[in-house]
Amino acid sequence: MRSRGLASSLRHASTAVSRAASPRTRPFSSNAPPPALREQAPGRNSAPSNPAIEFPCLDVLETRSATLQKQVFARSDESGPEPSYTVGATQIYHCREPLILDHGGRLQEFDIAYETWGQMNPDRSNVILLHTGLSASSHAHSTPDNPQPGWWEKFIGPGLALDTDKYFVICTNVIGGCYGSTGPSSIDPSDGKRYATRFPILTIQDMVRAQFRLLDHLGVSKLYASVGSSMGGMQSLAAGVEFPSRVGRIVSISACARSHPYSIAMRYVQRRAIVNDPNWNRGFYYGRVPPHVGMKLAREIATITYRSGPEWEQRFGRRRADPSQPPALCPDFLVETYLDHAGEKFCLTYDPNSLIYVSKAMDLFDLGAANQARTAARRAARLSGAALSSSSSSSDPICNLTLPDKPYEEQPESTLPSDPDAELLAPPPPSQLPQQQRQPQPQQPPADLVAGLAGLREHPVLVMGVASDILFPAWQQREVAEALRRAAAAAGVEPRVEHHELSEEQSLFGHDTFLLDVENVGGAVRRFLG
Amino acid sequence: MRSRGLASSLRHASTAVSRAASPRTRPFSSNAPPPALREQAPGRNSAPSNPAIEFPCLDVLETRSATLQKQVFARSDESGPEPSYTVGATQIYHCREPLILDHGGRLQEFDIAYETWGQMNPDRSNVILLHTGLSASSHAHSTPDNPQPGWWEKFIGPGLALDTDKYFVICTNVIGGCYGSTGPSSIDPSDGKRYATRFPILTIQDMVRAQFRLLDHLGVSKLYASVGSSMGGMQSLAAGVEFPSRVGRIVSISACARSHPYSIAMRYVQRRAIVNDPNWNRGFYYGRVPPHVGMKLAREIATITYRSGPEWEQRFGRRRADPSQPPALCPDFLVETYLDHAGEKFCLTYDPNSLIYVSKAMDLFDLGAANQARTAARRAARLSGAALSSSSSSSDPICNLTLPDKPYEEQPESTLPSDPDAELLAPPPPSQLPQQQRQPQPQQPPADLVAGLAGLREHPVLVMGVASDILFPAWQQREVAEALRRAAAAAGVEPRVEHHELSEEQSLFGHDTFLLDVENVGGAVRRFLG
Repeated sequence: MRSRGLASSLRHASTAVSRAASPRTRPFSSNAPPPALREQAPGRNSAPSNPAIEFPCLDVLETRSATLQKQVFARSDESGPEPSYTVGATQIYHCREPLILDHGGRLQEFDIAYETWGQMNPDRSNVILLHTGLSASSHAHSTPDNPQPGWWEKFIGPGLALDTDKYFVICTNVIGGCYGSTGPSSIDPSDGKRYATRFPILTIQDMVRAQFRLLDHLGVSKLYASVGSSMGGMQSLAAGVEFPSRVGRIVSISACARSHPYSIAMRYVQRRAIVNDPNWNRGFYYGRVPPHVGMKLAREIATITYRSGPEWEQRFGRRRADPSQPPALCPDFLVETYLDHAGEKFCLTYDPNSLIYVSKAMDLFDLGAANQARTAARRAARLSGAALSSSSSSSDPICNLTLPDKPYEEQPESTLPSDPDAELLAPPPPSQLPQQQRQPQPQQPPADLVAGLAGLREHPVLVMGVASDILFPAWQQREVAEALRRAAAAAGVEPRVEHHELSEEQSLFGHDTFLLDVENVGGAVRRFLG
Repeated sequence: MRSRGLASSLRHASTAVSRAASPRTRPFSSNAPPPALREQAPGRNSAPSNPAIEFPCLDVLETRSATLQKQVFARSDESGPEPSYTVGATQIYHCREPLILDHGGRLQEFDIAYETWGQMNPDRSNVILLHTGLSASSHAHSTPDNPQPGWWEKFIGPGLALDTDKYFVICTNVIGGCYGSTGPSSIDPSDGKRYATRFPILTIQDMVRAQFRLLDHLGVSKLYASVGSSMGGMQSLAAGVEFPSRVGRIVSISACARSHPYSIAMRYVQRRAIVNDPNWNRGFYYGRVPPHVGMKLAREIATITYRSGPEWEQRFGRRRADPSQPPALCPDFLVETYLDHAGEKFCLTYDPNSLIYVSKAMDLFDLGAANQARTAARRAARLSGAALSSSSSSSDPICNLTLPDKPYEEQPESTLPSDPDAELLAPPPPSQLPQQQRQPQPQQPPADLVAGLAGLREHPVLVMGVASDILFPAWQQREVAEALRRAAAAAGVEPRVEHHELSEEQSLFGHDTFLLDVENVGGAVRRFLG
């Protein structure tokens, strides 16, 4: 039986058949009868042709489920508080006025977690609002209260991209997130229970409106600059579009003005990975074992989109983790172990429901005029009908109890629909367009987008893209830049957009370049901010 | 309560809180206590701020699980046969001789399901072996026994790409598959139980060796051509490399000579989606509810890789399935409903374990000389030690009981290691290469690959790629073509490779172009075959 001897020295289990039929308790239970009830145990003389393959990567998941289950019961006995997601100490702004959301939901009150670096000058004119990517916290840089390095540690500081000798930098956790700002894991004040999937659908603009409540609270009437990458680059543009008079300069890196189908698809399958996990329980998993298995897979999928093929070809190629072993169905190639590691690190540190809501907000992002007009009409209808606590009747209720220098100035809801340029430039719905006009034409942004960005035509805007980015491909940043140029041209003003595209020679790191490239990304930001 | 009235007209459930805590039996059970045990039911006066979001897409999955569960119990009562995956009537070749696999496993005996079109000529010199993609069956074209259109219906027939007036076309289901050939859902003759994950790890070369057993059976000593797309294009090249004297011409479309990290990553997360499904049960789900939820997600992920961004931009853009409804976390954008539909169609028609094994074989594919030499050494060691039933001692046992014209001629295992060219050209292991040499250089294929393809330097080879393909990007086909040219140049012979790359103007359909483009793909194949 040499072949069995050989095989048992491999990553195979010689006892795997009885193992598969064993009564061992699995966190992954199912209603189906165990195999032992349906198949005869193999007789002494009926060995299989090959041993069963082992799955140590699934053992890890099952062990984690069991450990978490024990912790759940321990907490339950002690009636102690739930552990919450955190990356350390932050400041918290609590807004007591409701936030009405773009798609009909509301937050009766909410928290914004934020951190700051540098000093605000006396006239509060040196404030930079830094927006985060999907899963980042407000901890962009270390602080006295939290000395851990932040996610943009090398980009913030004296003489750096965001120069704290000149600027007062604020970074917030987005609403919908889980690092201190109100999100699905927060308690709904209406009934004292966690929101879970009773949290309302969010948009990028909703996140920005919440941030501007914080600015009101801090007495900041106008930002020196709105800066962000990835989802933060969406917010950065959205801040300018929503509050054109309150934003000076705009930096949007590796972002877009409207999500495209491939990125929607990649985020959709991440959400499916979570909702497929039985522990997700339609979002009501707080106080129970969280859907860490689905969350891990979601992060593995996301990680594919964050780094590009070229970098992986160089970094991993076809190398296997242990070439002396036979191939395994658990992580085997280096690229698989890399994804596995990324998923492991993330699966218990970020709230799965936050991933669902925040990634959906990214999918919904569209600064086109038609979408803005529809949203404005929806908000106007809702606001006119809602009897809210604020005395203001036609605008979003504001949170001005904290003495800002100027009253809250949200962009009037009616601007876009009544703007004749917007009417003129708004295209018919895509389904009415002939086939060839629906094709992506990076050099010819749709008129709808030119109209939607018209409010930024006089703002200095820095748009950056990376050729190796597959999630926010470089044509999307070219589209933003060209739309801004055309908006300026249509109004007869000088375009003030600056566009940089990092070639594959400059960066192979794809979407994640903004986290890594201090020289090219940081340098351009520093020069642009002046 | 206008806001609730508005909300309840949306895709929201006003009863969703009690629903989430209801004792309704779910196929997705878990060991955690239901929420009702941990949270108080909301009191009469404590309505949540927003209604819970509904998940009709999960209702569908749960209903299917329940229906399948009933069928399982019904079958169990009747002790009837299991339903098997099928796409209709095929011919079956049963090989009684063992197949020794590249990574140490063995199939004691095996079936190959196949179909044929056209007439074999008297000297059996007009045979084309058509290889399939990952999940396709042998049903490439309708037959009298199965009039359903095949997956290459418009490419096979009189005057078409594979001209049945001239050629006898054979298509097989691969081993590892589930459409009639031996795979994980087959019975292991050693113990009468289904293989499940006791099925051995496969390679593309293993699949090809099994196909050549069929050719032996049919008395075909040499193919006129080996033709395939996607995984079939890998097999098509592998057939030439393994059996250079038995293959005349080679057509390899939208394939590669070695898988790259992005494609490995995308297949890896598909496998994870399956193994994360509790119903997968480490592969032992036969006779039970299959992991249809994970399988559906796997297919949704795969579908992202099969079509390109440009096509989706044109076909779906940012359109939503029902713009009159508020955003949903179930499929919402058209691209999401498209993926959902693709997953639904597939999730019960293909064996999840087959997807795992066959996709892994694609990941392992590497025609480089070093990998070929390692494999040959492993096979030689195993064959010399194994006491097999065949009288032949130093070559793979053959299945020549069925009177082929010529004896089985597998490429000698020792060719590559003892080939001085191969030794000379074989590079050091990638980990020993300096960084810049590990970078992909499409115009400069690695010497290892040039050496690995040296056996095809005198074969006419047609290599085709599609610029919009993200799974097998066009640089991979350029790499194959250039490696073949260099192999010819190194030997001082005229290169016989023909390379076509379809531009985005010619096809936006990405990887799936080979299934759709009769004119460009079919036309080139027809002209090449002559």
